[in-house]
Amino acid sequence: MISQNTVTKLYNDILGFPDHGKVASYIPELANVNPDKFGVFLKPVYSEGFGVGDFEEKFSVQSIAKVFLLALAFRKKGEDLWERLGYEPSGTSFNSIVQLEYEKGIPRNPLINAGSIVMCDILIDILENPKEDFLQFVRKLAIEDDIQYNETIVTSESKTGYTNNAIVNLLKAFGNIHNDIGEVLDFYYHICSIEMTCRQLAGTFQLFANNGIVPHTQERILDISKNKRINAIMQTCGFYDEAGEFAFKVGLPGKSGVGGGIIAILPHQYTVAVWSPKLNSKGNSYKGMRFLEHLTSETVSSIF
Amino acid sequence: MISQNTVTKLYNDILGFPDHGKVASYIPELANVNPDKFGVFLKPVYSEGFGVGDFEEKFSVQSIAKVFLLALAFRKKGEDLWERLGYEPSGTSFNSIVQLEYEKGIPRNPLINAGSIVMCDILIDILENPKEDFLQFVRKLAIEDDIQYNETIVTSESKTGYTNNAIVNLLKAFGNIHNDIGEVLDFYYHICSIEMTCRQLAGTFQLFANNGIVPHTQERILDISKNKRINAIMQTCGFYDEAGEFAFKVGLPGKSGVGGGIIAILPHQYTVAVWSPKLNSKGNSYKGMRFLEHLTSETVSSIF
Amino acid sequence: MISQNTVTKLYNDILGFPDHGKVASYIPELANVNPDKFGVFLKPVYSEGFGVGDFEEKFSVQSIAKVFLLALAFRKKGEDLWERLGYEPSGTSFNSIVQLEYEKGIPRNPLINAGSIVMCDILIDILENPKEDFLQFVRKLAIEDDIQYNETIVTSESKTGYTNNAIVNLLKAFGNIHNDIGEVLDFYYHICSIEMTCRQLAGTFQLFANNGIVPHTQERILDISKNKRINAIMQTCGFYDEAGEFAFKVGLPGKSGVGGGIIAILPHQYTVAVWSPKLNSKGNSYKGMRFLEHLTSETVSSIF
Amino acid sequence: MISQNTVTKLYNDILGFPDHGKVASYIPELANVNPDKFGVFLKPVYSEGFGVGDFEEKFSVQSIAKVFLLALAFRKKGEDLWERLGYEPSGTSFNSIVQLEYEKGIPRNPLINAGSIVMCDILIDILENPKEDFLQFVRKLAIEDDIQYNETIVTSESKTGYTNNAIVNLLKAFGNIHNDIGEVLDFYYHICSIEMTCRQLAGTFQLFANNGIVPHTQERILDISKNKRINAIMQTCGFYDEAGEFAFKVGLPGKSGVGGGIIAILPHQYTVAVWSPKLNSKGNSYKGMRFLEHLTSETVSSIF
Repeated sequence: MISQNTVTKLYNDILGFPDHGKVASYIPELANVNPDKFGVFLKPVYSEGFGVGDFEEKFSVQSIAKVFLLALAFRKKGEDLWERLGYEPSGTSFNSIVQLEYEKGIPRNPLINAGSIVMCDILIDILENPKEDFLQFVRKLAIEDDIQYNETIVTSESKTGYTNNAIVNLLKAFGNIHNDIGEVLDFYYHICSIEMTCRQLAGTFQLFANNGIVPHTQERILDISKNKRINAIMQTCGFYDEAGEFAFKVGLPGKSGVGGGIIAILPHQYTVAVWSPKLNSKGNSYKGMRFLEHLTSETVSSIF
Repeated sequence: MISQNTVTKLYNDILGFPDHGKVASYIPELANVNPDKFGVFLKPVYSEGFGVGDFEEKFSVQSIAKVFLLALAFRKKGEDLWERLGYEPSGTSFNSIVQLEYEKGIPRNPLINAGSIVMCDILIDILENPKEDFLQFVRKLAIEDDIQYNETIVTSESKTGYTNNAIVNLLKAFGNIHNDIGEVLDFYYHICSIEMTCRQLAGTFQLFANNGIVPHTQERILDISKNKRINAIMQTCGFYDEAGEFAFKVGLPGKSGVGGGIIAILPHQYTVAVWSPKLNSKGNSYKGMRFLEHLTSETVSSIF
Repeated sequence: MISQNTVTKLYNDILGFPDHGKVASYIPELANVNPDKFGVFLKPVYSEGFGVGDFEEKFSVQSIAKVFLLALAFRKKGEDLWERLGYEPSGTSFNSIVQLEYEKGIPRNPLINAGSIVMCDILIDILENPKEDFLQFVRKLAIEDDIQYNETIVTSESKTGYTNNAIVNLLKAFGNIHNDIGEVLDFYYHICSIEMTCRQLAGTFQLFANNGIVPHTQERILDISKNKRINAIMQTCGFYDEAGEFAFKVGLPGKSGVGGGIIAILPHQYTVAVWSPKLNSKGNSYKGMRFLEHLTSETVSSIF
Repeated sequence: MISQNTVTKLYNDILGFPDHGKVASYIPELANVNPDKFGVFLKPVYSEGFGVGDFEEKFSVQSIAKVFLLALAFRKKGEDLWERLGYEPSGTSFNSIVQLEYEKGIPRNPLINAGSIVMCDILIDILENPKEDFLQFVRKLAIEDDIQYNETIVTSESKTGYTNNAIVNLLKAFGNIHNDIGEVLDFYYHICSIEMTCRQLAGTFQLFANNGIVPHTQERILDISKNKRINAIMQTCGFYDEAGEFAFKVGLPGKSGVGGGIIAILPHQYTVAVWSPKLNSKGNSYKGMRFLEHLTSETVSSIF
């Protein structure tokens, strides 16, 4: 198993490297975060785990929350989910709408914005109180109640979300949004606004490393097949147009967010959450990518 | 471990299903193969393994040989290889040249035709006798001398390979081919013409399941990092525009060829080769895909 | 000069042909029009002109009004207009947003939706009362006050205009919309809702056949260079992805609308307006295209 | 009518402007031309015309010869020609093969390389001695025998024509080339290698300004409809991705070549040929474009 010493040493190494990333500026609220924050938490399945640096500080998980959305939508709809979206890597950046037009309103996969927006629309049809029910679902995965939406982030995103407006309108033009556009986007922005610490994030993803069962409560959330498929989607689609790069260099399924968080999963063994706000040119945390690359190389832990 | 009984039962199940695939017709020679052939061979690491059906019959491995090409080129050039090609999934079909024009002659990954053609060009600069040396390399992986090029297939492909001609000329126009176009294509067609049985194929891929070491000779061909990276590339790029589908349904790194062969790898455990000539609409063996999907579901073997 | 007899004969010929077109259905209000309507009006410069069929019935000019928008915006902004849009043919259908993403929010030309929406944004910055001032401008060209917006059409378009919503949001995301999105779209939908008869339409376009001067009032609206350039833009961009077809078969600059209207101009000689609601597969009036093709062939009138 | 004085004055004005163009380097032979050459010849229909500067010096007409190819192929095949190519503007640069792949091997129009290569293939099926017959056709239009292929240019293009190789192979893969690829390209390169003076070029295009009749011999080459259609195609497709710009600024149908030549036509009035080897960023003669823009502005001659 990976020791706390190894993780701490790696953390300090990365801390010493120059960081060529830049904080995301397109959501005004995110630009206010201290760019030098850096936290790590590694949690073996069925164990407490350990953290280094700012691992107890909350940050905006942003697109990482799309995986919870996928878990809930896949659990509720089963294979019917794939009538309205695909599961192929996109080959283009996360908010590209070119693809959407070529492919007649069927998003390429659930982890690009368009795919997540369609899943929001699907859940609005199923859930009684979408925003509340979704939050309860995440809290159940986390085994913690201290997880909230950040309404300031929601407002900030709503005001400047022209690309997402374009996407949802185009989806609607193709008939792939059934509910009111405003309601769908409001739900979507709430989901992306969730805040967690590295420790909470590593905890919430434990089920994916544990065949779909939340380790400490033994509750099965996903059957083995669905759990495996979500991991496969994270592997092939979790990093926008850097999906190949992450598979190549890190070799684990995972997901990143523009808030600077990254989660990665070694099935049957551990989850690891990293947070550092400065992003590389592809929109993934600069320090986070390096940390995970070094971690998996030094500990020879990879799915491959 | 997976038993021979399980494999035999699955084989018979699939044999009973209707096969909606079609034999590849664009290479005339391939169209002459008996479409009802169906063979399987599963080989645990360091064990003899077992087969069902036509597993001792040779077939044209076609694009599966691109993985050997990648192994040899990566071994010889190291990370410099990535100056001339990428490792991102392509999102489009295997011989698309649209991408090549948008991306200025840098193939998206090594397993699309353009990427393999560039690797041929690279190896011509390095190897003394490219065709002979490549064949020796494959024989070393297979621990068998009974592996040959099929000159009839080479001739057949050369005569009708207009799309590959287009690709290599476009690569040359962008400066990413250094040698004579005819020589590069001749090498490329030879590589794709290699013939193997399912048993041989499963054997030749053992090193990828064994950290880069050929099990029975203990020869290290690739260091751990390179081996892991090749598996990652197979996972994200091995199935053209069905890469996501294969990851989703099968959950193993692998590679398919238009001859109807598919190889898949469960790292540290086994390799499995399937062959059935009828292809689905994406160009992958219809029976082969179903067999692997059922195999991994029933035996709960997946990297995820 | 073309005689009334020639026009009447041609009109009757076309009336006898089967009409393979379909009424536009994407704007609900337009679907209510009698599909068999067919009117023609030909107006030589400085003469009264003559009509056949339903030439005194009003219809929704839709995209034809984009030419008035271009005339007003070009007159007000001069060459600065081209900092925010281009004048190259688009090669794709009228509401494509693929192009917009590739070209970073600069619409390819003023006559695709995106280009017209940008011109609306520009005029909102310049005009005191955009909607009123625009209507007055069109009335001045028509030398008639009986020209109105149709508020029912505006409401109908607003409710279903998801693609236009997508376009304006994408433009805004690229920084090429300065005003409130709702205000810009409201202005745009009003412009497209203008209703005219064939007689009025042929009258309003007279200045383009007369070096930029309204014949009967002798008011110069555009200098010679601007007038020539607007005609050139109609020639190369006036018919969406059928621009080449119209140049090829008709050989005149012109503009079509989904309401079934087409206007064409023979510089220094005449303007001709046609209206018939059933559209061909490219969105241009089926009968209208045929009529103009026959008219220019039989009378050997073309700019080429 | 335009006087020799006007033309001479304009020529001298342009000569005094800085020239920001660059000589084409992709065909080695073209790079050897003196970059400061500048010639103009204007020829009214049925008159001798006059020239300024290097108008008696031969240069490589390159793509301008595609118009002769179109005239001959359209004359021989009639409307059947359009089964194998389109007549819509391309919206992309002259040798783009992206479009060809999207549109399944049907070139967008006759004046992009792909379109001309298909016309070569068509003529090989029709003409007894393609190269000789084509040269005789051009000489008949020119009423001169002193027009030749330049074999050095042919050899130079053949050796470096990787993009054209890619195009013809892709066309063949889609079934839109019937003859041997080498023979088709050899014919194509010969056509593009034709050399003429500005005086000869203006003469050879006279028929297009004269309803399809060669003025001095009174021989009808094209009927009125075909002649008009070729002019329309020059207007919408003659300048690659600058077609809109040429229509906008010059307002005449025409065609350019990478040798630095441009021909323009004012129907019923004159043809004008310009030559200056330095090209702007879109591949059209820098001085030539400016000269024609000023000529048509000052003399108010335009089709619009």
